Amino acid sequence: MEKIEKEAKKFFQSARGSHGWDHTERVYNLALRIGKEEKADLDILKLAAILHDISRDYADKRNGAVCHAEHGAERARAILKKINFPEKKIEQVVHCIRCHRFRGKNIPKSKEAKILFDADKLDAIGAVGIGRAFLFAGEIGARLHNSDVDIKKTKAFSREDTAYREFALKLSGIKDRMLTAEGRRIAKERHKFMVDFFKRIDKEIAGKE
Amino acid sequence: MEKIEKEAKKFFQSARGSHGWDHTERVYNLALRIGKEEKADLDILKLAAILHDISRDYADKRNGAVCHAEHGAERARAILKKINFPEKKIEQVVHCIRCHRFRGKNIPKSKEAKILFDADKLDAIGAVGIGRAFLFAGEIGARLHNSDVDIKKTKAFSREDTAYREFALKLSGIKDRMLTAEGRRIAKERHKFMVDFFKRIDKEIAGKE
Repeated sequence: MEKIEKEAKKFFQSARGSHGWDHTERVYNLALRIGKEEKADLDILKLAAILHDISRDYADKRNGAVCHAEHGAERARAILKKINFPEKKIEQVVHCIRCHRFRGKNIPKSKEAKILFDADKLDAIGAVGIGRAFLFAGEIGARLHNSDVDIKKTKAFSREDTAYREFALKLSGIKDRMLTAEGRRIAKERHKFMVDFFKRIDKEIAGKE
Repeated sequence: MEKIEKEAKKFFQSARGSHGWDHTERVYNLALRIGKEEKADLDILKLAAILHDISRDYADKRNGAVCHAEHGAERARAILKKINFPEKKIEQVVHCIRCHRFRGKNIPKSKEAKILFDADKLDAIGAVGIGRAFLFAGEIGARLHNSDVDIKKTKAFSREDTAYREFALKLSGIKDRMLTAEGRRIAKERHKFMVDFFKRIDKEIAGKE
């Protein structure tokens, strides 16, 4: 496991704060927790979590012309073959990584793939989600907040691409996309935390809190 | 008031997200709210709030070689003289702006100056403070979080200059620096909100929430 972690880390040298190695560590912790609850194969899950984003930086540099999940799955297969990991288990890990993005195609079928998907999405919400959304807004030079943001009229990577826009457009839907029972439970709590946070920030901005 | 606001806004063209015009609007709302509670001269307070950061961008571009509060106070005096604002009131506004930073020298003496100081500092804590701290971390390319940050060893504008470092180093002390009763009350609440937020983010990162 340590060897694989070392291999995986190499791919995160130039990754930005909001998508760095820290994200992988958090997904690992969450996946493990859900995995225990859902009685999954923890070895598969650990490897899949550690390796799930090794092509994130590669894909980002190509402006999304490459799917980081599909590319990462192939990279992971090569890494696991090199250490003579059992063929059957390799395919289980590869399936998790390929399907962790899941938009239309690449449907997570195994329990472990569903858990990795949930853990990855859960890391975008809650207190971590708030931190990441503001951090990302800072990275692209956006303003702090705009509660009246018109999602249709504002553009990604613009001054109006605020943390709140990210929440309204994407993050608020995560709770309805969970694939495991434990994922759904955590998502509901984290979602509520975000809703309360943005309610509070609006009150503070108006000078009311 | 509108005329002054228009004049003031001109100085915020190139300001970054975490120090933009939005900050001035929030400080205005907070100052007004505290001002009503503390029975202050609201006209003085409104002008002082609108004009308090007009030299922020100017000072930032000079890497702090100029004190933005002192420079802004002189700029404000020139603006208010131009519209023939009463001499005595100009000096009251100028005092507020000059002393809103208050580090050792430039002690806020009037009620209005104390309120502006409190409102300006309060905008760095609470939910707004969390948003601003992460946004700023994003602007300088820092990582999301590091709860073990060693304040003495890490540097400003580094990868480890995280939102949490900002809280541990500066923001957590704000509640003890308030100069008005209402400011103290709001600061206490906002401080608690931040403490709870960072407790939660630590739990989430460990996969426990």
